[in-house]
Amino acid sequence: MTDQDILARLEETLVSRRGADPSTSYTAKLFAKGPDSILKKIGEESAELIMAAKDGVAGSIVYESADLIYHVMALLTFCDLSIDDVLNELRRREGTSGIAEKNSRTAK
Amino acid sequence: MTDQDILARLEETLVSRRGADPSTSYTAKLFAKGPDSILKKIGEESAELIMAAKDGVAGSIVYESADLIYHVMALLTFCDLSIDDVLNELRRREGTSGIAEKNSRTAK
Amino acid sequence: MTDQDILARLEETLVSRRGADPSTSYTAKLFAKGPDSILKKIGEESAELIMAAKDGVAGSIVYESADLIYHVMALLTFCDLSIDDVLNELRRREGTSGIAEKNSRTAK
Amino acid sequence: MTDQDILARLEETLVSRRGADPSTSYTAKLFAKGPDSILKKIGEESAELIMAAKDGVAGSIVYESADLIYHVMALLTFCDLSIDDVLNELRRREGTSGIAEKNSRTAK
Repeated sequence: MTDQDILARLEETLVSRRGADPSTSYTAKLFAKGPDSILKKIGEESAELIMAAKDGVAGSIVYESADLIYHVMALLTFCDLSIDDVLNELRRREGTSGIAEKNSRTAK
Repeated sequence: MTDQDILARLEETLVSRRGADPSTSYTAKLFAKGPDSILKKIGEESAELIMAAKDGVAGSIVYESADLIYHVMALLTFCDLSIDDVLNELRRREGTSGIAEKNSRTAK
Repeated sequence: MTDQDILARLEETLVSRRGADPSTSYTAKLFAKGPDSILKKIGEESAELIMAAKDGVAGSIVYESADLIYHVMALLTFCDLSIDDVLNELRRREGTSGIAEKNSRTAK
Repeated sequence: MTDQDILARLEETLVSRRGADPSTSYTAKLFAKGPDSILKKIGEESAELIMAAKDGVAGSIVYESADLIYHVMALLTFCDLSIDDVLNELRRREGTSGIAEKNSRTAK
């Protein structure tokens, strides 16, 4: 079983980079450039994940998934939200069957 | 502290839906339609996350992040990969400072 | 030489579909659902173009490019803008060499 | 009426940049880096267009649409395809009503 606390630790690091000197880390620089930079990266990383999947290279799929999740977590941190909010949302959906969930989504 | 095992349980559910009757769940249907359907959803969900962030509505950002992570996990499952592989990749990066990581990426 | 007036004619059609009964055409329906639906399609169609390029199938690349340009034009119409504005922007850039353009972009 | 030959002229420029010294222009550099770089840009530019539309700034929507169309045309050139192929595809669809087109797409 993997140590899932990596997400909590990653979030701590992200929080500590907010307002930090942009020259000290990639993340501090990303936060300093503002939210649009994070959103651009989400667009770019999801394109790269799609490309990796098309290439069918397992290592790249894992690498690009990590990149994408990292930038989603950077966005959450920037917005004062937490990955726990997202995990809770996934947990909330657990009860619902996929089809029921889909239907509730269609209805929204 | 949130129960992070939700990711492990979600993965179990995803695995159980592979090859299941497409009429029984959203996920079984997604898997039956094949990998391109999952990749299309990743493109769509990342667009929706960008839109939610622009709208600045916390609930939508959480909701769309959950949707995106769910479909990334569906892709991983489809490719016989695990979210643990991605968490391990994030852990591997922990040692490296952001700037060093970025440089190693640029160098690849 | 292809009849490039297709873009002008397509725009005329798009304009005529604004406010039309949603049941009469795909475009009228898209407009009725509102701007977020168009933006979602732009995210989805660009993902599909990336996938088509990865597949290396010429017909699909052309088809998905047409889909993407169509939805960009639908967005322009929705925003009371015209494809002519975009063509003018491309013409404005003609003088500038790519590198100069890139530099001016970086500077913005 | 706008001079639509801008697309033909832009394509000529794109073709001339294939195989050119990467240091001479943005486009030559893009081609030298290979197709994945172009696809990454398509992902990034469509994200930027979505963001511009959410900001509701007409100038940015036009600017980002131009960026996106430019990179779609770069992809076409890289793949030995032409914007004329895409215009022809849009013309081919002219006869079909939107709903019919959508149905034929669903059927594919």
